Amino acid sequence: MKRREFLSIVGGGAAITVAKPAIAQSAPQIKWRLATSWPKSLDTLFGACEVFSKRISEITDGRFQIQVFAAGEIVPALTVLDAVQNQSVEIGNTGAYYYWGKDAALALGSAIPFGLNTRQMESWLAQGGGNALLQEVFTSFNCYGIPMGNTGCQMGGWFRKEIKGVADLSGLKFRIGGFAGQVISKLGVVPLQLAPGDIYTALEKGSIDAAEWVGPHDDEKLGFYKIAKYYYYPAWWEGSANAHTLVNLEKWNSLPKPYQAAVLAAARDAGHWMTTKYDAANPPALKRLVAEGALLRAFSTEVMEACYKAANDVYAEIGAKNPRFKRIYESLIAFRNDSYLWWQLAEKSFDDFQIRMRSRS
Amino acid sequence: MKRREFLSIVGGGAAITVAKPAIAQSAPQIKWRLATSWPKSLDTLFGACEVFSKRISEITDGRFQIQVFAAGEIVPALTVLDAVQNQSVEIGNTGAYYYWGKDAALALGSAIPFGLNTRQMESWLAQGGGNALLQEVFTSFNCYGIPMGNTGCQMGGWFRKEIKGVADLSGLKFRIGGFAGQVISKLGVVPLQLAPGDIYTALEKGSIDAAEWVGPHDDEKLGFYKIAKYYYYPAWWEGSANAHTLVNLEKWNSLPKPYQAAVLAAARDAGHWMTTKYDAANPPALKRLVAEGALLRAFSTEVMEACYKAANDVYAEIGAKNPRFKRIYESLIAFRNDSYLWWQLAEKSFDDFQIRMRSRS
Repeated sequence: MKRREFLSIVGGGAAITVAKPAIAQSAPQIKWRLATSWPKSLDTLFGACEVFSKRISEITDGRFQIQVFAAGEIVPALTVLDAVQNQSVEIGNTGAYYYWGKDAALALGSAIPFGLNTRQMESWLAQGGGNALLQEVFTSFNCYGIPMGNTGCQMGGWFRKEIKGVADLSGLKFRIGGFAGQVISKLGVVPLQLAPGDIYTALEKGSIDAAEWVGPHDDEKLGFYKIAKYYYYPAWWEGSANAHTLVNLEKWNSLPKPYQAAVLAAARDAGHWMTTKYDAANPPALKRLVAEGALLRAFSTEVMEACYKAANDVYAEIGAKNPRFKRIYESLIAFRNDSYLWWQLAEKSFDDFQIRMRSRS
Repeated sequence: MKRREFLSIVGGGAAITVAKPAIAQSAPQIKWRLATSWPKSLDTLFGACEVFSKRISEITDGRFQIQVFAAGEIVPALTVLDAVQNQSVEIGNTGAYYYWGKDAALALGSAIPFGLNTRQMESWLAQGGGNALLQEVFTSFNCYGIPMGNTGCQMGGWFRKEIKGVADLSGLKFRIGGFAGQVISKLGVVPLQLAPGDIYTALEKGSIDAAEWVGPHDDEKLGFYKIAKYYYYPAWWEGSANAHTLVNLEKWNSLPKPYQAAVLAAARDAGHWMTTKYDAANPPALKRLVAEGALLRAFSTEVMEACYKAANDVYAEIGAKNPRFKRIYESLIAFRNDSYLWWQLAEKSFDDFQIRMRSRS
């Protein structure tokens, strides 16, 4: 804390102490380090953290500085939660589902198979009780959790051969995120978690048969279309995927209220930037991928329904052992079921019509 | 501007002037009045303005205060643009399309028939050049425009009799917003613009045959289901509807940079609050409306296609006379067509599957 506004002035032998203005107490100089799970090449996820940091600096006239670090610069990509918990850094940005092994309830903060679409997730978190429920989990990891952007519905990944039915999943070596891997393994898939930089080589050498990452904009950079032509949709395990900013709980509580408000508003700003960036960048990337020879394929109804059943089985198994998971999961699913009752009217019929007319133009 | 930090202290006969700290120059005391187009009963649209004002006050530690006024308290609901332009108030919140009579390009800032869905609108504005193009229009009205939330896709309104085909539209007296009225009048509808408080009585007396407002949450309050049972979807004229915060341009330029940043971040925060509020409130309201006897009906393909053609005719007519409308419209439509190419894959197939499985559970 810089104390230049605390003035002790000696003039003509008389010491005059001027009270520190309230403004200085509420606007101290602070510098934090933000560890992320993202390489700098992910201009959406890493980029959102830069937008966040820049906005906070602007709002506070440079008094609250947050320096953003790429995955591995301070801590490895998938240990951001630990680093914030242990106060190795004050703040981090990551996907809560990366840590589902510590507590499966953390997955509910990012994405679960057959969970929520993007607007539903934003609404459940902000208005449906989601943030409060998840904070119970984050508190047990000494963190304050702030949602900060969604990727939108992801693609189902790149496959070297077609998946025509459930039988084609048996023995398939598939790079997929942890929690969804547990679901799809019930159908005979061998799920593998590989860092982004290792996926291409594994797919090229045939040590994996398929790999999912995010969607056209991010996938294009990794070049999968060159070695696995079948591009499946949707990622039923990520109908949306929310990123979290995590603040060490003591650091959060020690922030002046105006800085807390600045962080919350800047996180919304950065989250909005991220989703709108994905939504603007995916369409042209998809066009380029198709021009390069990517073959678009929808997962069959048989495959989707088998995965849906497997997901529900996994939820029942976890819920039986983890009451907090069960409680938060039931809140999310109740929100989903009500939301789709409404979604199928105006939103769906508008989109369906627009898509149909587009194909005629 | 409060100058308590400017200290001129006289001690022992020697005058010592202490330089004003930079912090005071960047954080003056400011009070603004915000005029809205919304009655207080619209807890979504009016509520978002309160969220916005509260957040700015929190961020600035109470130094930047914005007092929010309901429609009619300072100026009539549909003259907010004028009031900001003329500096009767420093800031306002409204729908730009209310002023399409001044310049049809203003409609592109809120919603046009068969335009964009909510995420597409957010993305076109923020990343697709929309905000910059619209600012050309706002500048000509001496305003700085900031998007602040979307209602989501709206419902097509309440009808006393079923609309089975285009023939049923002929002579129908329909309460509908201005720009869409111009489109639907090509099909023989008589469009009428009524203030919210007058719609119920007009519908009850039969001086209008149908009325659209927003969606379940807002419509329920106005009680239309008691007198017009057929509840149609979607509002093809409002696949999404964006609200704008408008700041008088000189007032905007005179704000310290940190306050500008606070306004931009708080607007995102409030806009997010509004959309998530609609998305959480509409499903339970829909259930209640159906329980009260509302009969859900989809506009037929024949009606939708006829309106689509009428809309395109109107766009061509306006574009021939208004080159700026044409230029901004073409940007929006190019974005829409690319976006739906992508949307029909992951987003649509995920939602379709979820809706189908929901109906089985």
